Amino acid sequence: MAGIAYVEGRYLPQADARVHMEDRGYQFADGVYEVIAVQAGHLVDGEGHLARLERSLDALGIPMPSSRKALETVLHEVIRRNRLQFGSLYLQITRGAAPRDHIYKDGMKPVVTVAAKRVSPPSRAASLRGYSVISLPDIRWGRCDIKTVSLLPNIMGKNQAVRAGAAEAWMYDDEGLVTEGTSSNVWIVTQKGELVTRQLDEGILAGITRNAIIAHAQKFQIKVIERAFTLEEAKGAREAFFTSATAILRPVVQIDGVRIGDGQVGPIARRLADAYFDALDALGTAP
Amino acid sequence: MAGIAYVEGRYLPQADARVHMEDRGYQFADGVYEVIAVQAGHLVDGEGHLARLERSLDALGIPMPSSRKALETVLHEVIRRNRLQFGSLYLQITRGAAPRDHIYKDGMKPVVTVAAKRVSPPSRAASLRGYSVISLPDIRWGRCDIKTVSLLPNIMGKNQAVRAGAAEAWMYDDEGLVTEGTSSNVWIVTQKGELVTRQLDEGILAGITRNAIIAHAQKFQIKVIERAFTLEEAKGAREAFFTSATAILRPVVQIDGVRIGDGQVGPIARRLADAYFDALDALGTAP
Repeated sequence: MAGIAYVEGRYLPQADARVHMEDRGYQFADGVYEVIAVQAGHLVDGEGHLARLERSLDALGIPMPSSRKALETVLHEVIRRNRLQFGSLYLQITRGAAPRDHIYKDGMKPVVTVAAKRVSPPSRAASLRGYSVISLPDIRWGRCDIKTVSLLPNIMGKNQAVRAGAAEAWMYDDEGLVTEGTSSNVWIVTQKGELVTRQLDEGILAGITRNAIIAHAQKFQIKVIERAFTLEEAKGAREAFFTSATAILRPVVQIDGVRIGDGQVGPIARRLADAYFDALDALGTAP
Repeated sequence: MAGIAYVEGRYLPQADARVHMEDRGYQFADGVYEVIAVQAGHLVDGEGHLARLERSLDALGIPMPSSRKALETVLHEVIRRNRLQFGSLYLQITRGAAPRDHIYKDGMKPVVTVAAKRVSPPSRAASLRGYSVISLPDIRWGRCDIKTVSLLPNIMGKNQAVRAGAAEAWMYDDEGLVTEGTSSNVWIVTQKGELVTRQLDEGILAGITRNAIIAHAQKFQIKVIERAFTLEEAKGAREAFFTSATAILRPVVQIDGVRIGDGQVGPIARRLADAYFDALDALGTAP
């Protein structure tokens, strides 16, 4: 992708956006990231993403490289230099570069990289289609609440899903409870009409879009329960869907080949997606 | 460290050894590595390390970037250009660089980086000292048999050990069984004089030095049993130690503050370390 990236204080053509081979992000996955949607040139839930970024950094003992305000300025400058209207920003912060050693020293200078991704504006149509998912054992580490670049099991799972013709893989823990998708949070609507999504703990990431969807549901007086559910419960649910900052909301009509509900996109998924898109459109729409 | 590194086909001053920010190693920990000791200009167990590298690549579906012979040529050229006599080589191979997407395409060009580390020749004295270790829950992912750069829990554990004044952290799984150290394999000598080290499975890395130590033990007709042991068994053992390509063999005289055996370096650890150093010295010694 041609474009302007930000690397260690400089704005560079994307092709020249390089980091040192001894950056600890490269040699130890010692870094965190955020993907923030851009709608009509605005950051979507920018506050939420930057607050989570700070929590991730804090969990790893990596200092914020600058004030949050200065970081926001960089993000807006990348948007401006790329004339980005619709798409997303990728922001990564690693502990910094140093001769390779498991033991890190205090006072390292974090490395910040930002890239812009230009995509078609998110479409309501994509949230009105039904998607298939497969299930896989969750083999990730014990701190999935930290948004680190340690994503190898996620990409392995996602690629396995795609090879199986599915849109996502839902992962389940040792007790058979669904944790999350490889890059999304998971939801079901029970036969009683309750909206269920896994509670926040060290097993899943606190999705920013997850928060927004909970808020929309509460606005509609849909009962939201944060608890874990099994694959069996999901397969017997009335509706199922998954959410993320870039996929927004994707209805699930099949899990491991088992039809969910009547095999159509359900009314609650539709209503929540609509509410989310209405809020996005309020930021500005494509011409 | 000043020196010459190898990056994507070029030999460069270490300071200029940079990779693209969209290298999947940087954004997804999508890569593998080896650390190979260098003794008197020779690779130590080069064959074993390169065979394991190929297994790691294969497990992730990353193609070998070249023949093994061509890769060896690069390693020897890095040794030559750095006039490296004693130290180690760091070799990393990632899936390659591409616009960020969990889904990767076939046919990507892997990125190879190699750096040299010049250190004092490994000393027998370091293997005749006693070390302390702490224990920590093993929170790593389910495929620790693949030597990936996804090392965040390892560095977190190692730094916790160092802050506690210990040399290493031994990690234990949900059943209380010790898996490995954050960058080493673990061993005990039981009260019956048997040498025990955890069996190879998806929970630990198949250490190259581990193999060499098993071979030395067999030469001495010490009975080697590959099975898991608990922390309690380790604390009640006659001897304990850990091994890695760069630490070689380090006797453990204290685990979580509990004295092991008589608190001195034991005879089996001493004998195995000596045998290992004799083999190293056969490659050439420091002037």
